[in-house]
Amino acid sequence: MGRFITIEGVEGSGKSTLAKRVAAEVSHLFPEVVLTREPGATAIGKEIRSLVLAEKEQGLTPLAELFLFAADRAQHLEEVVRPALSRGALVLCDRFVDSSYAYQGYGRGLDMTLLRDTMRLATGGLIADLVVLLDLDPEIGLDRARARESEDPGKWTRFEADTLEFHRRIRAGFLELARVEPTRFLVVDATLPPEDVAKRVTERIAAMGQA
Amino acid sequence: MGRFITIEGVEGSGKSTLAKRVAAEVSHLFPEVVLTREPGATAIGKEIRSLVLAEKEQGLTPLAELFLFAADRAQHLEEVVRPALSRGALVLCDRFVDSSYAYQGYGRGLDMTLLRDTMRLATGGLIADLVVLLDLDPEIGLDRARARESEDPGKWTRFEADTLEFHRRIRAGFLELARVEPTRFLVVDATLPPEDVAKRVTERIAAMGQA
Repeated sequence: MGRFITIEGVEGSGKSTLAKRVAAEVSHLFPEVVLTREPGATAIGKEIRSLVLAEKEQGLTPLAELFLFAADRAQHLEEVVRPALSRGALVLCDRFVDSSYAYQGYGRGLDMTLLRDTMRLATGGLIADLVVLLDLDPEIGLDRARARESEDPGKWTRFEADTLEFHRRIRAGFLELARVEPTRFLVVDATLPPEDVAKRVTERIAAMGQA
Repeated sequence: MGRFITIEGVEGSGKSTLAKRVAAEVSHLFPEVVLTREPGATAIGKEIRSLVLAEKEQGLTPLAELFLFAADRAQHLEEVVRPALSRGALVLCDRFVDSSYAYQGYGRGLDMTLLRDTMRLATGGLIADLVVLLDLDPEIGLDRARARESEDPGKWTRFEADTLEFHRRIRAGFLELARVEPTRFLVVDATLPPEDVAKRVTERIAAMGQA
């Protein structure tokens, strides 16, 4: 078995930038590094992603939203993550179950036991060896995310279009998840320079060693 | 609360024809009759339907398939079924949780406890007052369903394109579900003339009376 590392954080916290940088910097430590994300890493996942992120789908209920993410996750684990872990790869995944807890739980108010049950079904109990939480004031994050898409506001997601209050609940939720599992989470201040953020993470991965 | 009646059966067993006929024949017994179906009764459900039924999506895993149906179901219950039941309507639904048990459980081999847990989450525990099972040899049903779409084989669903053996497991699964709950299920021989099938069902509904 390889190593499974997930990267979490609010919109615009720099998750995908960090993932790419870390993947390059730790590539000599593992036989293979797989960079992936949720939702949308598989063919069916791309269709689910466009459905669940579309700004027009305002009427989507929190429970239906949860199950769409669960469908994407089940497909992703079967098609991409488990085979890569079996090959001994380091899998770096941009968002995983903690996003469901933060967004659908703390953000939308779905019951946490219901969420944990659903995630256990979707993942078959697989958890990340390390969760990197890029902590950021969502006001800064949303400005960054929206600036990135300023040339095409049609690309805003349903989540980016939601209220600041919603995103504040999500940030607080992520921090609470990290507080409960301090050894499995690495919380990094996302206002630090990207190279410093990446250094903190690669050092931690190097310390974990191979499986 | 109104009454919630679901209609189940293999492909080509005449579910939607029966639903329409029954809706017309019992309309005088209820303040309102709502005819609906799964998947695809809501805007988001239509998109999920085209995703999950598309013949090209051969790689869809059983678990992802289950969660897509669960997403459609959660949205459908919230948007259509619960509001209609609250208004005192008779809701006639073409497919519901028993299709998940028959197709994803008996057909695909997913664990039945996992299925029941997921369905309890998706439905919040809502169950049908009556389940009408149109029992039919799937060889006859598939011939009917495929003949219906003979002018456009591109309209075949992933399910219609599956093996006869798969559909035989589904029929056996439906019959087993009915055997376990004989009072809540009404099993009708789908080779009977459509008017006779409808008569059996409308008599049973009339005997139930209003809520």
